[in-house]
Amino acid sequence: MTTHPPKGPTAPGTESLSQLGRQTVQPESPETAELERVPAPHKGRRYVVRFTAPEFTSLCPVTGQPDFAHIVIDYIPRDWIVESKSLKLYLTSFRNHGAFHEDCSVTIATRLVELLDPEWLRIGAYWYPRGGMPIDVFWQTGPAPDDVWIPAQDVPGYRGRG
Amino acid sequence: MTTHPPKGPTAPGTESLSQLGRQTVQPESPETAELERVPAPHKGRRYVVRFTAPEFTSLCPVTGQPDFAHIVIDYIPRDWIVESKSLKLYLTSFRNHGAFHEDCSVTIATRLVELLDPEWLRIGAYWYPRGGMPIDVFWQTGPAPDDVWIPAQDVPGYRGRG
Amino acid sequence: MTTHPPKGPTAPGTESLSQLGRQTVQPESPETAELERVPAPHKGRRYVVRFTAPEFTSLCPVTGQPDFAHIVIDYIPRDWIVESKSLKLYLTSFRNHGAFHEDCSVTIATRLVELLDPEWLRIGAYWYPRGGMPIDVFWQTGPAPDDVWIPAQDVPGYRGRG
Amino acid sequence: MTTHPPKGPTAPGTESLSQLGRQTVQPESPETAELERVPAPHKGRRYVVRFTAPEFTSLCPVTGQPDFAHIVIDYIPRDWIVESKSLKLYLTSFRNHGAFHEDCSVTIATRLVELLDPEWLRIGAYWYPRGGMPIDVFWQTGPAPDDVWIPAQDVPGYRGRG
Amino acid sequence: MTTHPPKGPTAPGTESLSQLGRQTVQPESPETAELERVPAPHKGRRYVVRFTAPEFTSLCPVTGQPDFAHIVIDYIPRDWIVESKSLKLYLTSFRNHGAFHEDCSVTIATRLVELLDPEWLRIGAYWYPRGGMPIDVFWQTGPAPDDVWIPAQDVPGYRGRG
Amino acid sequence: MTTHPPKGPTAPGTESLSQLGRQTVQPESPETAELERVPAPHKGRRYVVRFTAPEFTSLCPVTGQPDFAHIVIDYIPRDWIVESKSLKLYLTSFRNHGAFHEDCSVTIATRLVELLDPEWLRIGAYWYPRGGMPIDVFWQTGPAPDDVWIPAQDVPGYRGRG
Amino acid sequence: MTTHPPKGPTAPGTESLSQLGRQTVQPESPETAELERVPAPHKGRRYVVRFTAPEFTSLCPVTGQPDFAHIVIDYIPRDWIVESKSLKLYLTSFRNHGAFHEDCSVTIATRLVELLDPEWLRIGAYWYPRGGMPIDVFWQTGPAPDDVWIPAQDVPGYRGRG
Amino acid sequence: MTTHPPKGPTAPGTESLSQLGRQTVQPESPETAELERVPAPHKGRRYVVRFTAPEFTSLCPVTGQPDFAHIVIDYIPRDWIVESKSLKLYLTSFRNHGAFHEDCSVTIATRLVELLDPEWLRIGAYWYPRGGMPIDVFWQTGPAPDDVWIPAQDVPGYRGRG
Amino acid sequence: MTTHPPKGPTAPGTESLSQLGRQTVQPESPETAELERVPAPHKGRRYVVRFTAPEFTSLCPVTGQPDFAHIVIDYIPRDWIVESKSLKLYLTSFRNHGAFHEDCSVTIATRLVELLDPEWLRIGAYWYPRGGMPIDVFWQTGPAPDDVWIPAQDVPGYRGRG
Amino acid sequence: MTTHPPKGPTAPGTESLSQLGRQTVQPESPETAELERVPAPHKGRRYVVRFTAPEFTSLCPVTGQPDFAHIVIDYIPRDWIVESKSLKLYLTSFRNHGAFHEDCSVTIATRLVELLDPEWLRIGAYWYPRGGMPIDVFWQTGPAPDDVWIPAQDVPGYRGRG
Ligand SMILES: [Ca+2]
Ligand SMILES: [Ca+2]
Ligand SMILES: [Ca+2]
Ligand SMILES: [Ca+2]
Ligand SMILES: [Ca+2]
Ligand SMILES: [Ca+2]
Ligand SMILES: [Ca+2]
Ligand SMILES: [Ca+2]
Ligand SMILES: [Ca+2]
Ligand SMILES: [Ca+2]
Ligand SMILES: [Ca+2]
Ligand SMILES: [Ca+2]
Ligand SMILES: [Ca+2]
Ligand SMILES: [Ca+2]
Ligand SMILES: [Ca+2]
Ligand SMILES: [Ca+2]
Repeated sequence: MTTHPPKGPTAPGTESLSQLGRQTVQPESPETAELERVPAPHKGRRYVVRFTAPEFTSLCPVTGQPDFAHIVIDYIPRDWIVESKSLKLYLTSFRNHGAFHEDCSVTIATRLVELLDPEWLRIGAYWYPRGGMPIDVFWQTGPAPDDVWIPAQDVPGYRGRG
Repeated sequence: MTTHPPKGPTAPGTESLSQLGRQTVQPESPETAELERVPAPHKGRRYVVRFTAPEFTSLCPVTGQPDFAHIVIDYIPRDWIVESKSLKLYLTSFRNHGAFHEDCSVTIATRLVELLDPEWLRIGAYWYPRGGMPIDVFWQTGPAPDDVWIPAQDVPGYRGRG
Repeated sequence: MTTHPPKGPTAPGTESLSQLGRQTVQPESPETAELERVPAPHKGRRYVVRFTAPEFTSLCPVTGQPDFAHIVIDYIPRDWIVESKSLKLYLTSFRNHGAFHEDCSVTIATRLVELLDPEWLRIGAYWYPRGGMPIDVFWQTGPAPDDVWIPAQDVPGYRGRG
Repeated sequence: MTTHPPKGPTAPGTESLSQLGRQTVQPESPETAELERVPAPHKGRRYVVRFTAPEFTSLCPVTGQPDFAHIVIDYIPRDWIVESKSLKLYLTSFRNHGAFHEDCSVTIATRLVELLDPEWLRIGAYWYPRGGMPIDVFWQTGPAPDDVWIPAQDVPGYRGRG
Repeated sequence: MTTHPPKGPTAPGTESLSQLGRQTVQPESPETAELERVPAPHKGRRYVVRFTAPEFTSLCPVTGQPDFAHIVIDYIPRDWIVESKSLKLYLTSFRNHGAFHEDCSVTIATRLVELLDPEWLRIGAYWYPRGGMPIDVFWQTGPAPDDVWIPAQDVPGYRGRG
Repeated sequence: MTTHPPKGPTAPGTESLSQLGRQTVQPESPETAELERVPAPHKGRRYVVRFTAPEFTSLCPVTGQPDFAHIVIDYIPRDWIVESKSLKLYLTSFRNHGAFHEDCSVTIATRLVELLDPEWLRIGAYWYPRGGMPIDVFWQTGPAPDDVWIPAQDVPGYRGRG
Repeated sequence: MTTHPPKGPTAPGTESLSQLGRQTVQPESPETAELERVPAPHKGRRYVVRFTAPEFTSLCPVTGQPDFAHIVIDYIPRDWIVESKSLKLYLTSFRNHGAFHEDCSVTIATRLVELLDPEWLRIGAYWYPRGGMPIDVFWQTGPAPDDVWIPAQDVPGYRGRG
Repeated sequence: MTTHPPKGPTAPGTESLSQLGRQTVQPESPETAELERVPAPHKGRRYVVRFTAPEFTSLCPVTGQPDFAHIVIDYIPRDWIVESKSLKLYLTSFRNHGAFHEDCSVTIATRLVELLDPEWLRIGAYWYPRGGMPIDVFWQTGPAPDDVWIPAQDVPGYRGRG
Repeated sequence: MTTHPPKGPTAPGTESLSQLGRQTVQPESPETAELERVPAPHKGRRYVVRFTAPEFTSLCPVTGQPDFAHIVIDYIPRDWIVESKSLKLYLTSFRNHGAFHEDCSVTIATRLVELLDPEWLRIGAYWYPRGGMPIDVFWQTGPAPDDVWIPAQDVPGYRGRG
Repeated sequence: MTTHPPKGPTAPGTESLSQLGRQTVQPESPETAELERVPAPHKGRRYVVRFTAPEFTSLCPVTGQPDFAHIVIDYIPRDWIVESKSLKLYLTSFRNHGAFHEDCSVTIATRLVELLDPEWLRIGAYWYPRGGMPIDVFWQTGPAPDDVWIPAQDVPGYRGRG
C-alpha cells in the first residue's frame, strides 16, 4: 500500500551521504564535523527552511562553564539544502568548544553560508541567562527578500521567575 | 424556522461532487486521491481561505519511519475553491507515502495550485522534531498582495521540554 | 454624583432605536433581522471599532449539521456606527440558517458594508474543525489605510490535542 | 549610599504639582478631574510612553449598568509628559460617568492631546463583553511615525469559555 | 577533547577587562559603575545583540519607594560590544538611585550609546504597576535599519488580576 | 498491510447501531434524539471515558436568547459505553431547547445515567458569560471511587478582558 | 421547531421574580440591593454552582480609592438557588461602597448564606494589586464535602511584569 | 574526558536487545511488533517512569479513517523496564490497525502489563476530536500507591477555536 | 450615593495605625521596619488571606550581589490581620539586607507569626535563578487544617529559555 | 545602610566551603565532583528546598549522543542543606557521563541522600524527546510527610508541535 516506499540509503540524490541512515559517531569539534548537502528539491521555487535546535550547548571561553542556547535558522536554498542529520551532528560538536555568544552564533551561520551558498540565511541564537541576564544574537546575510514568506521566529523573551 | 434549509447533495454548484455528504474510502496514495473543486462564491471579492491540518503524517523516504506535521494552507481563490472533504482525504493519503519534508510540503502546494489556479497560495509545514530538531518549510506562489488581508500563521515554535 | 447620568431610551441620537434597552425577540433569519445604526461620534476622527463574537453558529447547507465560528469584525466608520445589540441579534439569527463557511463569512461583511458605508471593513471568521481540519476566512473591503491603527486580530490557530 | 536620594515634593520640575506625593481625593467626574503635566525629560529624544490601565470602569449611558475596559495609551511627548498620578485620578473619575464605548475611548485621548500637544498619541480600549460580544476601539492622532519605535499593544482577544 | 579550550583571563581582546572572570563588588551608583567594552567580533557583519534584564530596580525620586522594571536592550554594534558582566553591574548600580521612569530608561540607553557608538540601539523599559497602572518607555537612536533583522521584543502587557 | 481492517457497519457489537457510519439527520429535540449504547470492551477493567463538547448551545427559557457552554463528561462504564455519534447528535438536539443552566446540565447527566447505568458519572458544564458573569455547574452520581484514575477537568476560568 | 419554547416571565417557579427578564435599575448600595432566589431544580441531587465575577469593584474605606477584584463563588444548593441577574445587581451595588478587602469578601458570602441556606458555600476574592502587592481572601462555610465534586478555582496568581 | 564512555551494543544488561542501537524496520502490526525489556536499575527503589507519545495514530474500525491520539503512560517497575525504542516501534505499529478508542487504549496498557508485570501502571489516551468532540480514556491497574510519587498528567483539555 | 463612605484615618480599629493613609519613609532594615496589625474582621470565621509580593529583593550575604524573589504568604488569622501597607514596607526593608535564601524566607514567616499569632501560616519564596538554577523555599507553621480552604499557590516553575 | 552587610568568605558556617565565592573549575565526572553541605538554618523548622536545573545534559550510554533533561529536586533538610554552587557543579559534571535516563535520575538523588541524610527527598527528571517520545522519571525516598508543605512540581508535559 506504500506508494513511495522507503528507498533506503540509495534513494536518488542521497547516494553520497555518509551519515544519514547510518550509525554515526559524535564529532569532537566543529572543525572535524562534516556538514553535508543534497540538491534542493523543487528548483526554481523559492521556499524557506527553518531548523530549530533547542538543545545547543557550548563552553564559555573564559571560565569553561557550559553555556546553553535555543537556536533557530532560516534560509532560502539556491542549489543545495543541508542534510539535517549532519547539521544536528555539527551543532552537537560545539559541546566542548569554547566561544563567546556573539562569535559562536555568527560562526554557525557562516559555516552554513559557505556550504550552501543560499539566496538568504539568518540565525537567531537565544542564550540562557548568565548572571540573571540572557543575551540573544540575530544575524542575516542581507535584507530579507520581500516576496518570499519568512514568518517571525517568535521565541518568547526571558521572564525571570514567578 | 430554518431560513436556508439544508439542501442535500443537490445544492447549487455541488451536483458534481463525488465525496461530500457521501460515505467515502481513504485513498491509498496522493496519486489516486481525487481533489475536487467548486465555484468560488462572491466572485470579485478577494478573500483568503485558510486550512489547518494538525494531523498530517507521512513516511521518511530513507528509513520508513513515520513523520508528522502540522500544516497550514492559505490561498486567495480566483474561480474555484477546494472542496474541503476532498482536501482532507488528499492529505490523509500521504499516510503511507515516503518523501522528504521539503519535497512533501511543496508537492502539496503544487497540486493545489494546479487544481485551483488561485490568485495566490502559500503553505507552512511545521514538522515534528526528529533527533531533537524540527524542520519547518514555508513556500508561497509569489509576493503576497498588499491589499488583501493575510494574517500571520503564528504557529508556535518548538521549545524542547520543561 | 453621576456626572453624565444614564439617559434612558431617549438619549441623543438613540431615539429611533427599536431594540437597545428594550425587551427583544430573537429574529428567525438574517433576512428578518433588523440591523440598526447610530451617528458615529467624533466625526472627523478615523478610529477602528472591533466586535468579537465567540458564539456564532449556523448550519451546514448540505448535511444540516451545526457549524460554529469565532468571528471578529473591524471597521472604520464614516457617518455611522452599528448599534451593538442589533448586531448581536443579527449574528444570532444565523442559528438556523444554512450556508457554506466562505459564503456565510462574506455575507455578514456585505450586509454591514451596505448598512454603514464604512471607510473600511474586514471580517475574520475562524470556524471550528470539521473532519479534524478547520477553515478560516479573511476578507476586507480594500487595502487597509496606512494611517489608521488596526491591530492584528491574533486569534490563535487550531492546535489539535495534547 | 543612595546616589540620587529622593527629594520629596520639591524635586526640580515638580513644584507645581498638586497631587503627586500628597493625599488626594477621587475627583467626581472627568470634568472636575485635574490632569497635570511636567516638562518632558530628554528633550530632543523621541520616545514612546505607554500607560496600561486594566481597571477602567464607566456607566452605560442608556441602562446605567457598569461597563469595564482595559485601556492602553501610547504617546510621543513633545514638551510635556503627563503626571501619572493625575492620569490615574482622571481615569478613575469615569467611575460614575455615562458614555458609549466609542465616545468614551476617544474622549480620553482627546483630553490628553489637549493637555500635552504630543507629537503623536493613540488609545486602545478593550471593553468587557456585553451580550457575549466585546467591543474594542482603536484611535491615533495620525499615522505612526516610521522612525520611532512603537511596539504592538498585543492585548489578547476575547475567547469566550472552555 | 575541548577544541577551543577555555583561555582564562588572557583570552584575545579581553586582557584589559577589569571585571570579567574576577571577583567584583557591586558599584554604589551609576556614576561609579564602570561599563566596559570589547572589540566586536565578525566586523562587517551587522548583527543585533539583545540583553534582557528582568531584575532591574531603582527608587522613586519623590517618595523613595522602590521601583521595579523588566528591561530589554537591542543594538547593532559598530566597533564595540559591551562586556556583559560590566553591563550587569551597571544596571544593578541603580538599586539605590532615584529617578523618574522616563528619565531612568533613556539614561541607560544614553550611557550605552556613548560607550559603544553603535550603529543603532533601542531600549524597552517595562515598569511594574504603581497605583494599578504600569508605565512602559520605548526609545531608539533612530529609525531601525530595514536590512538588519530586529525581532519584536514581545514583552506581554500587564493584565491585572483574574 | 492493515492488520485489523475496517469492518464496516457489521463489526461485532455494532450491528444494532442505527446512526454510526450512516447518513443521519439532526434530531429536533432531546426527547426525539436517540442515544445508543454498545457493550463496554475490556469488561472487568474499570476505566474512565471523557467526552468534551466545546460547541454546546441551547436557549434561555425566559428570553429565548441562545446560550453556549463547554461541556465535559466523565464516566466509568459498567456494561455499556455510549456510542459517540449518537451522543453528539443528542447534545446538538438542545440547539432549540429552552432550559436553565442548572437544569440543562443535570438533565444531560441524568439521561446518560439512565442509558448506561454506569459505575460513576460526572458532568462539568462551563457556560459562557451572560451579564458579564458565567455560571458553571458540576454534578456527579456519588463520591468518586478512590481506586480509579479520574484526572481533573481543568477547564480554565473566565477572565474577562485585557 | 423549538421543543421547550421560551416561556416568558411566567415560566414555572419564576413568577415572583422582580428583576429577571425586566428592565432594572442599578441598586445604590448592598443594603438596598434585592437578592432573589428560586427553587433549586433536581432536588436531591447535590451539585455545585459556580459564579465568576471578573468585574467587581468597591472603594477603599480609608482613602476612597477604587478597588477591583475578580470573584468566584461556589455553592451546593439545598432548597434554593440564587437568581443570577439579582446576584449580578447585588455585586455591582458595591461600586460606591467602602470596605476592607477581607471584610468585603466575607460579607458577600454571608449574605448569600443567609438567603440560600446552602449545604456548603465558599468564596475566593482575588484583589488587584495595591502598592504592587495583591491580597486574596478565601473562605468557606465548613469543610468541603468529600462526595460532591468541587473543582479547584485555579485563578492564576499575580506575576508582576515582563 | 568521558567518564562513563558509551559502551555500544554490548553494555551490561542490553546484550539481548535486538533493536536498540541498530537499524530497524517498522513492524506492520501490534501482533508482530516485538516489545523488549531490560532489568530495572536501582532495584528496591520504587520510582515512576513516564512515556509521552504525542504522535500515536491508528484507524477507525468502522470507517477506516485515521485516528490520532496523544498518549501518556506511567508505571512503577518491579523487575523490568521497557526498552524505549521497542516501545516506540510497538506504538507506531498501530498505524494501520483498526480499533475503537476505548479498546485500543486499554490494549496497549494490557500488553505492557503482560511484558513488565509492573507494581502499578496507568495509561491516559487523549484522542483528537471527531465530529467536534474528543474522547479521552483513562485506565490504571489498581489504586495508585500512596507512598510513591505520581505527578498528574495535566494534558490540557480540548478547547475548540478562538 | 456612597453607602459606606470612606472614613479617613479614624475609621474604627485603625486609629492606632501610624503608616496607612499617611506619607511614609522606607525603613532601612527589617529590624527598624514597623509591622502593624489590626483586629481581624468576622471573628469566628476561619478564612485565608494571601499576599503576593512579586518585587522582593535582598542581598547575597557572601558576595553582596542583589537577589530577587517572588514571595507568596498565606495565613489564617486568629485575632489579628496584618496591615498591608506596613507589610509592604517591611518587605521592601530587605532591599539592602544580606541573608541566605533559606534563612531570609523563614525569617519573614517567623516575624509574621510573632506579630499575628495566626492559626496557621505558610510562605513560598520563589527565588530568581543564580548560575542558571533557582531555589524555592516552602515553610508552614504546621499541617494545613483540613476544613479551611487553602488553594495551591501554583507559581510556575522556572523554564530556562526558548 | 546595609543592615546585614555581606560578610565575605568567612560568613558563619561557610568557612569550610571550597567552592562558594571562589573561582572554580568544572569537575570532569560525577565521581570527582565535590558536593558540599552547610548546617541547615532554622533547626527544628521543617521546610522544603527546591532546586530547578533546566540545563542538565549527559550522554546516552549506548550511542554516545547527548541527552538533555529538566530536573527538579525537592527535599526537607534534617541537619544539612546542600551548598548550591557545589550542586550546580555536580550536575554539570554529568556532561560527558554516559548513563540511562532511569539510572542517571536515581543516581543523583542517591548521592544527595548520602550527603544530606534529609528527612525526605524526591527528584523529577523530565528528559527531552528521543524518537519523538520523552521519558520522565519520578522518585522519592518515601511517602511525603502530610504535615509539611510540598507544592506540585507542575512541569508541563511534552506536546509535540503546533
Ligand atoms: Ca515576577
Ligand atoms: Ca507573531
Ligand atoms: Ca527548559
Ligand atoms: Ca498538538
Ligand atoms: Ca500533541
Ligand atoms: Ca501580534
Ligand atoms: Ca471553547
Ligand atoms: Ca507581536
Ligand atoms: Ca480579569
Ligand atoms: Ca489543576
Ligand atoms: Ca484585565
Ligand atoms: Ca519578570
Ligand atoms: Ca471560543
Ligand atoms: Ca497545579
Ligand atoms: Ca527550550
Ligand atoms: Ca499539532
